[in-house]
Amino acid sequence: MRILVLGGDGYLGWPSAVHLCAAGHEVAIADNFARRRYDEEMGVSSLVPILPLENRVQIWQKKSGENIKTYVGDLCDAAFTHHMVEDFRPDTIVHFAEQRSAPYSMIDREHAVYTQTNNVVGNLNLLYAIADADPDIHLVKLGTMGEYGTPNIDIEEGWIEITHKGRRDTMLYPKRPGSFYHLSKVHDSHNIEFACRIWGLRATDLNQGVVYGVETDHTVLDPRLATRFDYDGVFGTVLNRMVLQAVLGRPLTVYGSGGQTRGLLNIVDTVECIRISAENPAERGEFRVFNQFTESFSIQQIAETIARAYPGRCSIEQLENPRVESEEHYYRAAHTRLLDLGLVPHLLNETLIDSLFAVVERHADRVVDSAIDPTVRWRNTSSQLASEGATARAAELGLPTR
Amino acid sequence: MRILVLGGDGYLGWPSAVHLCAAGHEVAIADNFARRRYDEEMGVSSLVPILPLENRVQIWQKKSGENIKTYVGDLCDAAFTHHMVEDFRPDTIVHFAEQRSAPYSMIDREHAVYTQTNNVVGNLNLLYAIADADPDIHLVKLGTMGEYGTPNIDIEEGWIEITHKGRRDTMLYPKRPGSFYHLSKVHDSHNIEFACRIWGLRATDLNQGVVYGVETDHTVLDPRLATRFDYDGVFGTVLNRMVLQAVLGRPLTVYGSGGQTRGLLNIVDTVECIRISAENPAERGEFRVFNQFTESFSIQQIAETIARAYPGRCSIEQLENPRVESEEHYYRAAHTRLLDLGLVPHLLNETLIDSLFAVVERHADRVVDSAIDPTVRWRNTSSQLASEGATARAAELGLPTR
Repeated sequence: MRILVLGGDGYLGWPSAVHLCAAGHEVAIADNFARRRYDEEMGVSSLVPILPLENRVQIWQKKSGENIKTYVGDLCDAAFTHHMVEDFRPDTIVHFAEQRSAPYSMIDREHAVYTQTNNVVGNLNLLYAIADADPDIHLVKLGTMGEYGTPNIDIEEGWIEITHKGRRDTMLYPKRPGSFYHLSKVHDSHNIEFACRIWGLRATDLNQGVVYGVETDHTVLDPRLATRFDYDGVFGTVLNRMVLQAVLGRPLTVYGSGGQTRGLLNIVDTVECIRISAENPAERGEFRVFNQFTESFSIQQIAETIARAYPGRCSIEQLENPRVESEEHYYRAAHTRLLDLGLVPHLLNETLIDSLFAVVERHADRVVDSAIDPTVRWRNTSSQLASEGATARAAELGLPTR
Repeated sequence: MRILVLGGDGYLGWPSAVHLCAAGHEVAIADNFARRRYDEEMGVSSLVPILPLENRVQIWQKKSGENIKTYVGDLCDAAFTHHMVEDFRPDTIVHFAEQRSAPYSMIDREHAVYTQTNNVVGNLNLLYAIADADPDIHLVKLGTMGEYGTPNIDIEEGWIEITHKGRRDTMLYPKRPGSFYHLSKVHDSHNIEFACRIWGLRATDLNQGVVYGVETDHTVLDPRLATRFDYDGVFGTVLNRMVLQAVLGRPLTVYGSGGQTRGLLNIVDTVECIRISAENPAERGEFRVFNQFTESFSIQQIAETIARAYPGRCSIEQLENPRVESEEHYYRAAHTRLLDLGLVPHLLNETLIDSLFAVVERHADRVVDSAIDPTVRWRNTSSQLASEGATARAAELGLPTR
């Protein structure tokens, strides 16, 4: 089938695109390279060096004989989005093209507004482009397990049957997420469900857990096909970051008590979940939700697993939690729908972590030390306007200012 | 108390502001006059003539002896929002300042994106301004009963206790709204709940029903204090529009079967609900939701009530429903919390409708006939980009184009 991968230059977009291509699909990638610009803004870069998209595509073409078409542009540009969909006429659109960091969205007002505008508007433009071009196109949209928060009841896959005062309905699962980024995905989910209802679109919302790992069957074929590896406090995900801390001989940092439990999955399972979702489309008018993770661990358990696997000395340190979140909570989340469609999970084990240690050791000289610890605090509104106000008031009072 | 009314030039914002002022509060109004610009765009205007804000405020000052401060600006301008909150230092902010028409949001992609961006970004800027200036400020935010959609279980006030697989939690009530406008309010509610959780803000989300009527105790003191009356297919609400149809001797138009049931309230109850909410603030950290309506009717029942009340001949006509919505559904929605705080409802009766007939008759020569019937269709994506694409393709094929 013809599959358009939006955000195909990113951590998971790139390996997903080549995985889909290797599985026999005709693939195109779109990207505006926003992710590379966030690196510049944050003063870090992928631990694993990555080539520009056009080079990767060229290497992949040489290795596989398959061509991946590329579109460079921004989903928030409606004309670009519309013309791309009209031009490629995909059967399936896989949508990774959103700002995906919770801490980035919590830096300050500007980053919160940017994240919600970028994600919600890009997704709305895409919904209109699909409805206009061909409502039969299957949208596979990346959401996050973080949309659910930590309810005291079992998390189901997107919908829940509620019995209330003797009556019953199947409702969207109530969500209470933990950052303006996670909220942007909740907004997207509501907008997509509505588009399925009024225009008969077909959509699969993948509420993905925390992804770890960096290599897939295809990205290892050539170092120039590598995908990015983020370890920093803003874009790095917890397991990858802790692997880096172990290799650097630094304590593995746990935010708060570490009782926070999260669903995790291996990057090789991510790319399979994308393939499985694309090859088994939702029905017309259906808003389908899969919880895309394979195992749950507490943050403390992840740290202990890495400490155990690391051949050298390794300590665990608790940091004051920069986020506002429950550190001790009930957590049981359904994740059977992708298994039912054939996903064979690669569970976390020490062999995998060993290979990750090796990748990180190879590139350890590229680490920016100061980028590892968290700098963004949830309770801090950090508004530039507030600082200006404070400065102005301080000036009025004749006080020294920053 | 000091109360800042955002959107204080609008249909409900203006009478709420004077009502709060008359109740002894120190009131300021902010508006960017977007509502007046929508009229220009749509080629209509309020049936009841309205003065510019500055004139109204001046008349009110002469009548009451009370001054209402005004701020002219856009909540999407973060610096404006921030400085206004710092300058007025309100105890309470009543937030009416959003694009509030479902059909307007469904005109096309541009209007959908505008509605969600305008509403969500304005509200985010406001949350940051409150958190920065003084987290003790009570936010009274206008939402809509339309956020809930038409679930097959009772609608509760914002939160619902769910028992699931033997466990229990109090969750946000799952919402499944019927337009990109209604969705923007759902997005706002999620963002506000989060801000209460992380910054300890206090907020009351008023899920308001369909408002009817045009006069309050204070707007009738002088015709120059009147608030707007919308009858058109885009901004007019159902009961007010049908009153106009009756006066013009046109059939009362019901969309679809008319079995759609909605919560309604009189404009005089709206202004009281705002006062009651402001004077009984939420606790710090509390996200409180009130369902703000007094009675439920089906659209057919509303039409029949008006037909019965109108002294002349009056027929009812079914139009093809331009919306995508259930026309026959269960509907039972809780609305006790405002009653518990002292709201004394003014229920729909024929006396009230008579006075509304009189207002409409007085201004019937201002009606734009062509604006009454619905023009925006939910299933139509109406994208300008799609038309361009269609035109280009038609040209390629040598076909005549529009």
